[in-house]
Amino acid sequence: MTGTEFVRARSPEAKRAREDAILAAAARLATAHGVREVTVTAIAEAVGMHKSAMLRYFETREQIFLRLAADAWHAWSQDVRAGLADVPAAAADDPEWDEKARTIADLMARSLVDRPLFCDLLAHTALNLERNVSHDSVRSFKRRAIAEVDSIGTALSAVTPLDADQARSVVTTATSMAGALWQMAAPGTQLRVFYQTDPELSHSVVEVQPRLTDILSALLAGYADRGGR
Amino acid sequence: MTGTEFVRARSPEAKRAREDAILAAAARLATAHGVREVTVTAIAEAVGMHKSAMLRYFETREQIFLRLAADAWHAWSQDVRAGLADVPAAAADDPEWDEKARTIADLMARSLVDRPLFCDLLAHTALNLERNVSHDSVRSFKRRAIAEVDSIGTALSAVTPLDADQARSVVTTATSMAGALWQMAAPGTQLRVFYQTDPELSHSVVEVQPRLTDILSALLAGYADRGGR
Repeated sequence: MTGTEFVRARSPEAKRAREDAILAAAARLATAHGVREVTVTAIAEAVGMHKSAMLRYFETREQIFLRLAADAWHAWSQDVRAGLADVPAAAADDPEWDEKARTIADLMARSLVDRPLFCDLLAHTALNLERNVSHDSVRSFKRRAIAEVDSIGTALSAVTPLDADQARSVVTTATSMAGALWQMAAPGTQLRVFYQTDPELSHSVVEVQPRLTDILSALLAGYADRGGR
Repeated sequence: MTGTEFVRARSPEAKRAREDAILAAAARLATAHGVREVTVTAIAEAVGMHKSAMLRYFETREQIFLRLAADAWHAWSQDVRAGLADVPAAAADDPEWDEKARTIADLMARSLVDRPLFCDLLAHTALNLERNVSHDSVRSFKRRAIAEVDSIGTALSAVTPLDADQARSVVTTATSMAGALWQMAAPGTQLRVFYQTDPELSHSVVEVQPRLTDILSALLAGYADRGGR
């Protein structure tokens, strides 16, 4: 029980600072090498701790990345909601609605692509990160992510003709497609290199941000059209 | 070189039959337990081969699943194109267009959800399966998948006001969202159980098929509206 006593003896501030250092090291490594390449050992080395000591702060590698994902959801949500607050409300029969839909789609797509680590985490979350962690950790992550989807949904339906459910659907599509498109074709991925070496496949290279803007603006228009009836 | 000679000595038909048996065993195991749980050792046991002997037919576990994914793309494509062939062409100003868009969205969503293994493979492809395989295997998979996206896109733009690029975008969204929603909330997933035990999160449980139909019909409507201008 020495380990537990050691943790208990530390002040909450010191514990928090240590957690922040671990999260920052994991974020740095994942930004540089991709989430899938980062091991617990590498994080422990980067933060200058013994692996066993580090695992007193986080259960597993997956728990570290789930915490980063929850923090990234929060930061992205603040960013998008600040952007949406500047967009004037528009009804579906507003002659400027199409242009506003494009502005909103562009705002969402750009804020996602500007956060490569978030895009990478989004692809990994349900598939690889919500395993190998305790029920409580998944629950805590889900509650935070769902709360952010709801907040962004509320901000989105305030400036569009979309109802709450349609607005949440746009947020889910934006984040899921950002994750998927990022894995398919982000700059620096193995596949990007591969496409460059195989000219007959190069026409299918996806540019993540314009493609995402295109999908989201069509989705917003489609929902607005339906709601406006 | 005995191993190589052994393979060379077999007839092409026998080799093909062995490959088919390996693929069928992998498909059975993945359908029962999920793609991520299936190891090379389990596949070799199920097919009654030594692991080392099996790896003369496929480089890695990932290559086996990439072949299954390519075959699943082909089968799904045939299914969707057969369904689309029965849908009468409609312009965006056709009064029945909305209903047709809904029919097409429902057809695509249903045909995806009816193929749980394909949905599972779709989520795993870019993230987990296009690694740990040779350049040639990824290339061969990509060529087949892209060819199917193009074929379905052509069939889709024949019965809708969408241009080729918009139609391909609908196919990419359909398959990426099927993979993402499946991982989030497929029946039998760990998270589904988890949502049932946490009533305050249950409002966010996603029903994959109606949600996918909803997104795709709004996307079709949005693109059609844009194209009709």
